[in-house]
Amino acid sequence: MDRNASSASEVERIARASRAAAIELSALDGGARNAALRELRASLLRSRAPIEAANREDRARAAALVEEGSLSKPLAKRLDLEGDKLDILLESIDGVMALPDPVGKVDYATRLDDGLDLYRVSCPLGVVAVIYEARPEAGVQISSLTLKTANAVILKGGREAELTNAALVEAMREGIAAAGLPRDAIQQISTREEVRALLELDPWVDLIVPRGSNELVRSIQAGTRIPVLGHADGICSVYVDRAADASKALAVVLDSKTQYPAVCNAAETLLIHREALPRILPPLAVALDQAGVELRADDEARALLPRAKPVTAQDYRTEFLDLVLAVRTVGSVEEAVDHINEHGSHHTDAIITEDDEAAEYFLLRVDSACVMRNASTRFADGFRFGLGAEVGISTQKTHARGPVGVEGLLSYKYRLYGNGQGVAPYGPGKRSFLHRAIDAKGMPRPRASDAGKSR
Amino acid sequence: MDRNASSASEVERIARASRAAAIELSALDGGARNAALRELRASLLRSRAPIEAANREDRARAAALVEEGSLSKPLAKRLDLEGDKLDILLESIDGVMALPDPVGKVDYATRLDDGLDLYRVSCPLGVVAVIYEARPEAGVQISSLTLKTANAVILKGGREAELTNAALVEAMREGIAAAGLPRDAIQQISTREEVRALLELDPWVDLIVPRGSNELVRSIQAGTRIPVLGHADGICSVYVDRAADASKALAVVLDSKTQYPAVCNAAETLLIHREALPRILPPLAVALDQAGVELRADDEARALLPRAKPVTAQDYRTEFLDLVLAVRTVGSVEEAVDHINEHGSHHTDAIITEDDEAAEYFLLRVDSACVMRNASTRFADGFRFGLGAEVGISTQKTHARGPVGVEGLLSYKYRLYGNGQGVAPYGPGKRSFLHRAIDAKGMPRPRASDAGKSR
Repeated sequence: MDRNASSASEVERIARASRAAAIELSALDGGARNAALRELRASLLRSRAPIEAANREDRARAAALVEEGSLSKPLAKRLDLEGDKLDILLESIDGVMALPDPVGKVDYATRLDDGLDLYRVSCPLGVVAVIYEARPEAGVQISSLTLKTANAVILKGGREAELTNAALVEAMREGIAAAGLPRDAIQQISTREEVRALLELDPWVDLIVPRGSNELVRSIQAGTRIPVLGHADGICSVYVDRAADASKALAVVLDSKTQYPAVCNAAETLLIHREALPRILPPLAVALDQAGVELRADDEARALLPRAKPVTAQDYRTEFLDLVLAVRTVGSVEEAVDHINEHGSHHTDAIITEDDEAAEYFLLRVDSACVMRNASTRFADGFRFGLGAEVGISTQKTHARGPVGVEGLLSYKYRLYGNGQGVAPYGPGKRSFLHRAIDAKGMPRPRASDAGKSR
Repeated sequence: MDRNASSASEVERIARASRAAAIELSALDGGARNAALRELRASLLRSRAPIEAANREDRARAAALVEEGSLSKPLAKRLDLEGDKLDILLESIDGVMALPDPVGKVDYATRLDDGLDLYRVSCPLGVVAVIYEARPEAGVQISSLTLKTANAVILKGGREAELTNAALVEAMREGIAAAGLPRDAIQQISTREEVRALLELDPWVDLIVPRGSNELVRSIQAGTRIPVLGHADGICSVYVDRAADASKALAVVLDSKTQYPAVCNAAETLLIHREALPRILPPLAVALDQAGVELRADDEARALLPRAKPVTAQDYRTEFLDLVLAVRTVGSVEEAVDHINEHGSHHTDAIITEDDEAAEYFLLRVDSACVMRNASTRFADGFRFGLGAEVGISTQKTHARGPVGVEGLLSYKYRLYGNGQGVAPYGPGKRSFLHRAIDAKGMPRPRASDAGKSR
């Protein structure tokens, strides 16, 4: 058997074990899942010494790679789990425990007929695969969220953090086993061949969450039929309308572009209404220049910006992730919206205006996950949005969109309770359905975690 | 240019026009969309004569094909739009108008800080493509649902109903144009090459809804990265537990198998607890036999069923869509659940039991869109579930699952309203977020349908 075939069958074994563990998890109540989180946390704390030793080893290897020039310094830096980083990580588990239980919530309850009650109930997706780079914390953070939501997880961390990831996963598996859960609710794979094999396993993997570079996300999206929660690009725009307040425009553009330029919700394009150009652009350009931003502008804007470079068509489609801003003059909010829908990545876009109608025009028609009026694109984030935790940011429109909290790890199922009914008696000229809203609390909830084994 | 290249560029033109129409539709309020539905209905009524003429022509062609043996009689029958069928179709549009407006609903509203309010608002997906076979009504039904939800639609009907479909689409386009909407909110394509080209257009098509045979659905799912709302298989099971009531078991199994065997929510497999075999199977088999059902059973069940054929492993994975039922004896509810999760299609499965714990074990762990206790699998249906309309039944877990009403045609977006804020002032040791729930009704809703054009 060649190596790929052997990793394919090994990964299928792992995915099947995940599915089995997921089915067990789906039967646990929120208290049992929080108890498992507590054990997971305690086990990580007990394993502090081996985790830190593994991390030192990973960092020593990374330092050697930096030395020989085959690894970048910032990437090596992100491996670091020293000092208070592990404590902060453990605290984040407390935060997940404190979240309300999102599983088993009824959002639709209706009586089809007397003695025939229907409930739609939130439930875990099942098996979630997470592929992340560099930062080993990501594996623990996501595992605590999958456990909270009763999902099994398959982790694939960065190669550079191999030993740290192995130590963290081992400690987490010990922890959940101590709580009586199947160890295989948390598993890991480690090679690219295994990832490729995993992407084929749509019967056993329900969702893939890639956390890392655009290239990572794009290659995963292109290579699988399993749903992917994520976004490849963040080409966000700020449109300064004719009716913009100059100081708001200055504040929002500066924050959107410069507060943290390397992230997906930073602005890459500035659109500005022709009539606002002379009033707003020159002082804005001074402030951007002071912040070190390189402007690339169209001819009309460059007439006011002698130092700006000419912009290219490609610049309007580029995620610079750097202190570069493409500038385009437009004649109307309509033109701004058309530009964004054609060139943007449907992530986050802002309008600066005092005109309610122009704002509504923009907010309705810009086809993006987040649309802002007079606020920075950088607010587009699960924690800032108050979602409690962020699983990822999605630019797709199906399933979850925008910053996604734990609800992105959930599905729902319909439960129908009857006493022997069939559909035959219903229909035109026959019996009709009641469809009367009922109390969601009426759904039977016996404890069944341990039921069945003896049956 | 060869024919495929020419249909590819033509379909891209169609899809881009759909996107532009979708953006316009997204700005209409519910009243304007219902007014357009009224005009669409009126236009269909006015076009009754040409529609019926086109339908007669299609049926004449189909009759000739049946004659020469290249079209099945039932398929030809489904083309028929005679008699009261058009009236029933028009009435179904009234039903869609009467549904509450699902667009613009706020399901999350939080104050991030004073003067910084966040709302999550339901919005259309954008462009929905629907591929259906035979029944020409499907095109009108789905167009009324996409219009209700402010989506543009691209229709691909069956070849046999070509003239009828063209007449219906023409009348619908006339109708929405009379209401002032872009005609291209409803478009059609007609060849398989065009469908293939459409499946590549993920930047402009947000969802595909295939309505037809398993083969149709499977080929579309395999051939596109666009999300597909649908299900290829309906391998549904009924499990008769040790603690089953015999008369409920009889009623549910009979209805699930025989009430309409050709549909996805009919049962294909009967699982029965060993201890229930002697009590329940013999009378059940008599009733099934009287209903014309062929039983294929394992050895243990066949000991009680002299006329049953031996079952094969493949039978447990087959959607018979016919009066055939695979029977398997199990030793526990656990074994039944394992069988269903391994062999079923995650559509709809039922347990017959008087034991609350066994029921809960089953309902929690069976990984299907719909799980029933003591009720027929045939209830799994959008109308029976009270969803008002059914866009499709999904066996996926992301986006919409199970019978899907108009919410399957919707996404949401986040709207953030500020007055110039950036994220820089917030963080550890700095300003914190409020995250206080606010009234969803506070979201600004100026009329903006006509705004912008003059800006």
